[in-house]
Amino acid sequence: MTKLKGLRVFAPATVGNVACGYDVLGFAINEPGDEVVVRETEEFEGLRIVSIHGDPEHQLPYEINKNTAGVSAQMLLDEVGYNGPGIQMKLYKKMPFGTGLGSSSASAVAGVVAVNELLRRPFQKRELLKFAIAAEQVADGAIHGDNVAPCLMGGMVLVRDAKLAEAHRIFLPGGLHAVVIYPEIQVLTKDARDILTASVSLEQHVQQSANLASMIIGFSNSDLELVRRSMRDIIIEPQRAHLIPHFYDVQQAAFDHDALGCSISGAGPAIFALFANSLLAEKAAVQMSKVYKSQKMKHKVYVSPINMTGAHLV
Amino acid sequence: MTKLKGLRVFAPATVGNVACGYDVLGFAINEPGDEVVVRETEEFEGLRIVSIHGDPEHQLPYEINKNTAGVSAQMLLDEVGYNGPGIQMKLYKKMPFGTGLGSSSASAVAGVVAVNELLRRPFQKRELLKFAIAAEQVADGAIHGDNVAPCLMGGMVLVRDAKLAEAHRIFLPGGLHAVVIYPEIQVLTKDARDILTASVSLEQHVQQSANLASMIIGFSNSDLELVRRSMRDIIIEPQRAHLIPHFYDVQQAAFDHDALGCSISGAGPAIFALFANSLLAEKAAVQMSKVYKSQKMKHKVYVSPINMTGAHLV
Repeated sequence: MTKLKGLRVFAPATVGNVACGYDVLGFAINEPGDEVVVRETEEFEGLRIVSIHGDPEHQLPYEINKNTAGVSAQMLLDEVGYNGPGIQMKLYKKMPFGTGLGSSSASAVAGVVAVNELLRRPFQKRELLKFAIAAEQVADGAIHGDNVAPCLMGGMVLVRDAKLAEAHRIFLPGGLHAVVIYPEIQVLTKDARDILTASVSLEQHVQQSANLASMIIGFSNSDLELVRRSMRDIIIEPQRAHLIPHFYDVQQAAFDHDALGCSISGAGPAIFALFANSLLAEKAAVQMSKVYKSQKMKHKVYVSPINMTGAHLV
Repeated sequence: MTKLKGLRVFAPATVGNVACGYDVLGFAINEPGDEVVVRETEEFEGLRIVSIHGDPEHQLPYEINKNTAGVSAQMLLDEVGYNGPGIQMKLYKKMPFGTGLGSSSASAVAGVVAVNELLRRPFQKRELLKFAIAAEQVADGAIHGDNVAPCLMGGMVLVRDAKLAEAHRIFLPGGLHAVVIYPEIQVLTKDARDILTASVSLEQHVQQSANLASMIIGFSNSDLELVRRSMRDIIIEPQRAHLIPHFYDVQQAAFDHDALGCSISGAGPAIFALFANSLLAEKAAVQMSKVYKSQKMKHKVYVSPINMTGAHLV
């Protein structure tokens, strides 16, 4: 009898909808994140999710075609025409869901990366993006890649075309750190999408896209003052801010403490702020946290560099 | 009696509204362009336009507060509190107006650069942008800087905020060449603006801004295939194409001959196409021109590198 293989993959949380980059720009952070363990088995055929940890209220499905970790992995198996031993998958949710930190994306990425590793990498990492994007679509119905792309590849990533799984890394100056904070309430991505107006004024479009372009020029030239002027969201943030308790107070605390930018992560309620270095980020995190503390609201806060690695074997 | 000073400044034509960069992205070409000659005089006080050449139908005003060359120059004189000798200005229009090549912008830039030189440069070139943008507003009522900024500074320029006169050069790989072609009809910028819908769908906004961002990443990385995929306009071009005879035929001829992108310059009717080098541009120019030749339509065609200098003394 041959030895059955097994391995573990970590996929990081991500900040999506980065300010003026709604639906197209995201970045990865170091923690939290999800882990997926896959192992060959002779007990059954095909792919099965055998356990989900970190989901005390049993909100996540075990069905392969409903859990993003299963969907992405199964798509890869289908594409290669896999007919090897059965594969058992264990999902360790080490990050909250419904907070706007790309929880379903992290599972989708961890699942497909783990199975790709188990099969000795039939695909390069970049080629896995299409599976993860398609799986993410199962979670919220919309096709976008601003969480799965940075989760998979690390760094800050612009998704030019989610349908084509075409994404590009943005050059970033070294040392940038993010603060991510969220009150412990849940905002469903679908609901947060439904409140958005279907159209924007031509003037808003021009201003927002000029800021997106300028922010990228700012990062490319390590011109952080240009990043600071550009990293704002005049379209989505004003529509969603009311879903997040004390959003503007937290944002003000960030801007009062040297944030380059501060807006809603994904569909919220997580709030992210970006800083030139770890010292500034740590200092601001305390002040941002104070807003919720003073309201006696349960919340979590993370300080992290931009994760430049993305999903990886552990 | 001291010798009275005089000098001549050239300001180049520009392509504005570069594909997905409506109102924010433009680049300069080598020709055509406008020239302004300024000379001190003792015959009168203050600034006067004493002659306008190249305007056989007398469409352009001589009034300082109505001609963009006069407006920009007068604003500079006001700001420095000028009380020297009178200044006579001669305007040599060496480019067509109402074709979408930034004719009024070239005059605005030439006027202010000439007077700035005459006064021994009280302002750096970049500081002249605010005067030129304000003058351009006189011409078409809207505030934007995607013509005046590249006309002044050269290269391809993104205007983040026209009100603040904040503009940024885009890194470009060497050797890019543009073809500019226009049928000899006139489209008024104001009319071309009036037909635009006041809003765009959120989906269009997302797609267009992802393309703008990707195009800039493509230029930054000298990734011309990314530029080729990104340099398109799904919002403005479909609304204005019908104003330009045979637009889609000319565009197809450009794309059939290796254009990285091809769209409407400014408010039209000029059409621009961008190419990786001069050989490709020259070849495509012949084919684009054939479209109008076969229709026996009068037209002009220019092939030019991206002008990296902008307005300058001649």
